Amino acid sequence: MKRIAFLLIAVATVAGVVAFTAPASGHADEAASPIASPIYGVKIPAGYRDWKLIAVDQLLIPGMADQLRAQFGNDLAIKAFKEGTLPFPDGAIIAATHWTRVPSENNNEVLDGPFPGAQSFVVGSPVNVQFMVKDSKKYAATGGWGFADFKDGKPGDKALHETCFPCHRPAKDRDYVFTRYAPAP
Amino acid sequence: MKRIAFLLIAVATVAGVVAFTAPASGHADEAASPIASPIYGVKIPAGYRDWKLIAVDQLLIPGMADQLRAQFGNDLAIKAFKEGTLPFPDGAIIAATHWTRVPSENNNEVLDGPFPGAQSFVVGSPVNVQFMVKDSKKYAATGGWGFADFKDGKPGDKALHETCFPCHRPAKDRDYVFTRYAPAP
Repeated sequence: MKRIAFLLIAVATVAGVVAFTAPASGHADEAASPIASPIYGVKIPAGYRDWKLIAVDQLLIPGMADQLRAQFGNDLAIKAFKEGTLPFPDGAIIAATHWTRVPSENNNEVLDGPFPGAQSFVVGSPVNVQFMVKDSKKYAATGGWGFADFKDGKPGDKALHETCFPCHRPAKDRDYVFTRYAPAP
Repeated sequence: MKRIAFLLIAVATVAGVVAFTAPASGHADEAASPIASPIYGVKIPAGYRDWKLIAVDQLLIPGMADQLRAQFGNDLAIKAFKEGTLPFPDGAIIAATHWTRVPSENNNEVLDGPFPGAQSFVVGSPVNVQFMVKDSKKYAATGGWGFADFKDGKPGDKALHETCFPCHRPAKDRDYVFTRYAPAP
């Protein structure tokens, strides 16, 4: 059973990661997706790419994933992050966007003179986007969160979405949210 | 002379990078900075941390800098990025925020079961923030851009700011802007 749980987490975390396919024409955030995620019924919120930034991060799984990532929040989520409100209020939505990480030859050419060995990495292709939608009643069985994972505007399957909550469970003391707000420099 | 130019670029690029001091209390974006950058007279625009995201990137200079970065744009800048408008219109502002990159032990604990060797890196401490402000008349001598580099809410010195434009010159065909817009997954 433990092995199966691990496998499920594995599938969830890497979902969309190993497929380096070109993005679909048009951007997924230009309109709400007509297709909802299985189990949770979460659609792509229109305009999420223009939401305020929570934080950025990097994930490296040798041979499987090499990503730069950004998390966005709607106004309710951002307010909760800034004020340290836990649990997040109903209506809060967090979007996690994942791109491939690629070296920037342009930047490295500029940097190489003064900084031999300098390495600049930038965003490559879009990989997938994940959402967490807070509704403490509707999603009471999963910590009050509904989950969704989209690639090229299409949600992953039921098996994939069964892995979301178990993976987030270790962050229970922060209302199942791993990301922390990145302060302004 | 070439060596001096390189040194200046070096200073500019790494400015604030090697100092891992704790951030000043309060965030630099909560109010416009009362202090303007030398040469250009650019102040910290209030609320820039809440601007829309242009892209994210990573910079590694072994032994000197290890950063996760995000670029924000005001509405004029974001519109120009989305529509591919060059040159950027007067009034466009780009903010480049730099944080230290640190491994996330929390995330790695969760990932380690299914993905031995997985490495998650997150934002550590704020390092510095840089601004480019477009005013084609006021800043005609520097490609139409005014520059600023702030650490803990205070601008760097004149020598530092003399390095901004020479470093951006190689990106002349993109109106001196290195960053490209990261599309929504």
